[in-house]
Amino acid sequence: MDLPLGYLFRGLDDDQLKRIAAVAREVSMENGEQICREEEEAKDLYILKTGAVELMTKVENDVELPISILQSPGDIFGSGVLIAPYLYSLTARCAGTGILFRIEGSALQKLMGEDRDLGCIIMTNLAGHFFARLKESRQEIKIHFNTLLRSYR
Amino acid sequence: MDLPLGYLFRGLDDDQLKRIAAVAREVSMENGEQICREEEEAKDLYILKTGAVELMTKVENDVELPISILQSPGDIFGSGVLIAPYLYSLTARCAGTGILFRIEGSALQKLMGEDRDLGCIIMTNLAGHFFARLKESRQEIKIHFNTLLRSYR
Repeated sequence: MDLPLGYLFRGLDDDQLKRIAAVAREVSMENGEQICREEEEAKDLYILKTGAVELMTKVENDVELPISILQSPGDIFGSGVLIAPYLYSLTARCAGTGILFRIEGSALQKLMGEDRDLGCIIMTNLAGHFFARLKESRQEIKIHFNTLLRSYR
Repeated sequence: MDLPLGYLFRGLDDDQLKRIAAVAREVSMENGEQICREEEEAKDLYILKTGAVELMTKVENDVELPISILQSPGDIFGSGVLIAPYLYSLTARCAGTGILFRIEGSALQKLMGEDRDLGCIIMTNLAGHFFARLKESRQEIKIHFNTLLRSYR
């Protein structure tokens, strides 16, 4: 099985990628289906093969704030499986019928423990990804701040 | 030299901590002094020993938005040394005369390459740290969003 190469697996060699593909399972998803929910225990990592997935966070009551839409093969969500306390940080919902690869967090952790190079590459990629998202998120806060500044001038 | 134990070095054993302490240098900082600047090449990682450091981001023209104040021994900044493209993401300014430990990024990368366990632990800690900051940052956006929601009701 060929996994689409998302940010998390960049820099891994063919043998390492094969070991990861060996623990991945293809699952189909239907439009509107909830795949994982914010704050729940993170058990699986997901990689998009086809279709689209919307990531959201709960704001208040039943209002959800969209964070991003994943629609490129290799896009990843559920990375809470790799970070204590192992919770999903966002809710994921299918926004376009398609196929996902699902990898059990425990299986991935086992591979990372057996091959520390693999573990180090994945955690470096993950840190880089969060760092980039953090900069984006701060950028949004700056925009709000600028709007506020201008309204006081 | 005893390094105060910040989030980045949690889970390392005594021998690993000694190797890191061996490449750390103590430097003093004066109130108001700029230690590193947003967007510049990240060469050094800093660990607070005493005093306080304010982290900021440039909003527009000369306006800076404060992001956080570090004042606990072991607080770390300059983690851009560990993430490509190796730039500082924030400006750091001394907000209380004190002492820092400075570690050259290249020396830390060398230790991480020689001991993959050490590298894996540090990158896991770093990913966890960014993940927590990202959640905080999204929380701020939620607050803005809620305020906006209420103003339309």
